[in-house]
Amino acid sequence: MSKKQEKDEKGITVKKKDDMPEWYGQVIIKSKLADYSPVRGTMIIRPYGYAIWQKIMDYFNQRLKEKKVDNAYFPMFIPESFFKKEAEHAEGFSPEVAWIQNKDEDSKERLALRPTSETIMYDSYAKWIRSHRDLPLRINQWCNIIRWEVKDVKLFLRSREFLWQEGHCVYETEEECDKETLMFLDEYEALAQNILALPVIKGKKSEKEKFAGAKYTATIESFMPDGKFLQCGTSHNLGQGFAKAFNINYVGKDEKNHLPWQSSWGFSTRLIGAIVMQHSDDKGLVLPPKIAPIQIAVIPILFDKTKEKTINEAEKIRKELDRYEVKVDTREEYSAGWKFNEYEMKGIPLRIEIGPKDIEKKQVVIVRRDTGEKLFIKRANLKDKVKELLDDIHNHLLDKAHEHMKKSIVETDSWEEFMKSVEDRKIVFAPFCGEEKCEDSIKEKTKGANSRCIPFNQKNIKKKCIHCGKEANVYAYFGKCY
Amino acid sequence: MSKKQEKDEKGITVKKKDDMPEWYGQVIIKSKLADYSPVRGTMIIRPYGYAIWQKIMDYFNQRLKEKKVDNAYFPMFIPESFFKKEAEHAEGFSPEVAWIQNKDEDSKERLALRPTSETIMYDSYAKWIRSHRDLPLRINQWCNIIRWEVKDVKLFLRSREFLWQEGHCVYETEEECDKETLMFLDEYEALAQNILALPVIKGKKSEKEKFAGAKYTATIESFMPDGKFLQCGTSHNLGQGFAKAFNINYVGKDEKNHLPWQSSWGFSTRLIGAIVMQHSDDKGLVLPPKIAPIQIAVIPILFDKTKEKTINEAEKIRKELDRYEVKVDTREEYSAGWKFNEYEMKGIPLRIEIGPKDIEKKQVVIVRRDTGEKLFIKRANLKDKVKELLDDIHNHLLDKAHEHMKKSIVETDSWEEFMKSVEDRKIVFAPFCGEEKCEDSIKEKTKGANSRCIPFNQKNIKKKCIHCGKEANVYAYFGKCY
Repeated sequence: MSKKQEKDEKGITVKKKDDMPEWYGQVIIKSKLADYSPVRGTMIIRPYGYAIWQKIMDYFNQRLKEKKVDNAYFPMFIPESFFKKEAEHAEGFSPEVAWIQNKDEDSKERLALRPTSETIMYDSYAKWIRSHRDLPLRINQWCNIIRWEVKDVKLFLRSREFLWQEGHCVYETEEECDKETLMFLDEYEALAQNILALPVIKGKKSEKEKFAGAKYTATIESFMPDGKFLQCGTSHNLGQGFAKAFNINYVGKDEKNHLPWQSSWGFSTRLIGAIVMQHSDDKGLVLPPKIAPIQIAVIPILFDKTKEKTINEAEKIRKELDRYEVKVDTREEYSAGWKFNEYEMKGIPLRIEIGPKDIEKKQVVIVRRDTGEKLFIKRANLKDKVKELLDDIHNHLLDKAHEHMKKSIVETDSWEEFMKSVEDRKIVFAPFCGEEKCEDSIKEKTKGANSRCIPFNQKNIKKKCIHCGKEANVYAYFGKCY
Repeated sequence: MSKKQEKDEKGITVKKKDDMPEWYGQVIIKSKLADYSPVRGTMIIRPYGYAIWQKIMDYFNQRLKEKKVDNAYFPMFIPESFFKKEAEHAEGFSPEVAWIQNKDEDSKERLALRPTSETIMYDSYAKWIRSHRDLPLRINQWCNIIRWEVKDVKLFLRSREFLWQEGHCVYETEEECDKETLMFLDEYEALAQNILALPVIKGKKSEKEKFAGAKYTATIESFMPDGKFLQCGTSHNLGQGFAKAFNINYVGKDEKNHLPWQSSWGFSTRLIGAIVMQHSDDKGLVLPPKIAPIQIAVIPILFDKTKEKTINEAEKIRKELDRYEVKVDTREEYSAGWKFNEYEMKGIPLRIEIGPKDIEKKQVVIVRRDTGEKLFIKRANLKDKVKELLDDIHNHLLDKAHEHMKKSIVETDSWEEFMKSVEDRKIVFAPFCGEEKCEDSIKEKTKGANSRCIPFNQKNIKKKCIHCGKEANVYAYFGKCY
């Protein structure tokens, strides 16, 4: 083994609590989820990372089918004139759009590389939608997105190209649009909590933070161990602005022309960053069982005389657990200890060790990745125990993150406490006027904190805004974010 | 219903044999597989078309898993300097590359939008591969591809953006590379014949037609009803040229440094065009059962008094056929006749009609989309019969296309017959020197025909080349192509 190889195969060299950004990068590189790319601002999703994305896609495609959303694919090029049709949208996205110069000599219109697909999709919607019978229209696409934001990539969290899904729906009524905007947000919450073990806070974005061109934006926000929020998915009620701009209308049951209501909603490969940051530890990655590409690593402990018998037993275990993703590692050029480290680094939820003595005793050794707990399980109980443990790991990861989030919330009416809590990386829950200028000023004074979301269904509180002292009708969550 | 709507809902207005390009466009637009895009040279894959692509992806992802190929995702931006590293590759692709101007002020290198990903991937391969233990490396990606070729899009067949898969493998030995280059070609053949009902001719590409930078290119070619070839998938043995250019090497078991061998292989959404053109007819789309998003349409014949009973029976049928994709159409605003036309246009392989009289007689009516045949089936035999019919439709489509292909082959040593056969849109099988200049001249004289492929395992024929009269060691298939 070369020096270089040895060095790379060592564990994480910093602690999560000491240097989170460095730790985060090392976990991703060393577990081979992703790699830096030679093209500035971009990243490479390696097979292990892509397998997680595939699991997320598979799960969500099932949900889309259930909700009658169809997948499609629209061009990645968007003519400049399309962008300009919806003024707020154009203004909001213009700093981060990448353009290609049209190579056609007879057409000099610049083409944008999609930073989001509202405009290119709604041009077709105007063609396709004629009657109330064509509604609701629900289309999703999985694609790459280009936003020329950063020079220095933050793996999975911020890069000039990323993968996402974007849903785009059209409805007859405002009520229906509102209902489904929140329904898809609920789908995101279910994905985050039930599949990725990420607790989230739900609510509306402020005027300043909403999507460019939306009536309002709803969001799920997860709170990271270092005290920063990470936006995990947004669902926008677009109102009728795009329908007006793109001339989408339909003949209603009353045989008159109407403007429809629209929504769009998306989540991206950023979710993988959230998983890594939330759950992983100083030994490497920790994956929630439902999206782990390998859920169980079976490691036969090999001695010359009992090798065949042990490998056979490991294979039996694989067959018994065939509803899970199981990897049996029989490689002889690596020691059992080396393999333990490897699967810890890769965040495999359960490790099963089986040696000749275990076979004799009719037992297996199971080690949990999340707690490190080592259990001696009767061979006959293996199947039940594995199910129980995987469920338990999911719940434990979710609870731990939830506990941290709950403990971090500081509710206050005092600007001093607000400032101190933001400084301490807390979630600050405070009365807020909701105005853009006020939020700008909060951001400046706190060096980066802003409102993350305004919970739904609040009582009218009649308080003064935490910052400007104007009337505030709502409490909002504030904090720093990725 | 508006005039416009009525017009669009009419059937295909030209016959396949009279005006194939117009017929082809109408089938795609009216069955809603795809649509023209406002961005010149690009197209929109509508939900019905994307569902077919999803079926192809699902099937092929299974095969990739079986063959130990992992999916990943690399950046779509490729630095100009990467392109230039492999000279032939750079030259071959340069006319059709689209560039973006780098927005970073401190970096003026142009970035290409990937026309294929060899260069961006192999830069990382050089980093990742160190030892023989890292080989074989087999990575695939599903992504969008940009080639600035045409102004006028040919739906699914030629557009500036399309979707594909590209596999990129690295091996220790030439032998292994050779073997797997052809193994993946065999996978393509199996996909075409067993899933898409497309018969293909297999072989190597000539020097002129091979992939830019490859040692050789292997191909599967399908022959369309209008007498033109359509390339359906290619697998390239890249030799060691890219490994040299990108400095990929590995330490072998002998502890010395070696250059590895590489292959790449891909197919695209073009396959959907091949399916449409090969199987469809004057009534609209005809889909092979294995990739039909809806395999069976159940249409209950509704009368006021027996409506509930009939719908219940239709639902029972759906449950009974739950291993298939079944759609029960109970809409009352459309007549049964309108629905028959609709599902014919959309190419649904089987239509089941069930009315009160059928229920009484304990039968169902089944209509095959491929032959139009109407069968009265005992209700009790439905499940077996459906399986049999779907298999039969697949075989019938494949056989029909195969028959046409076989009948079109003209084997000749005479230049006169060659010219006449090309003119008659035949597949011409003729001795060929294989030289690029000779092929250029053939293309010119025939107004577009070239060698499509050179079958494997030919006896040494020792003939004169059909065109230039030089020595020819092989027979090749010639014809015009899409």
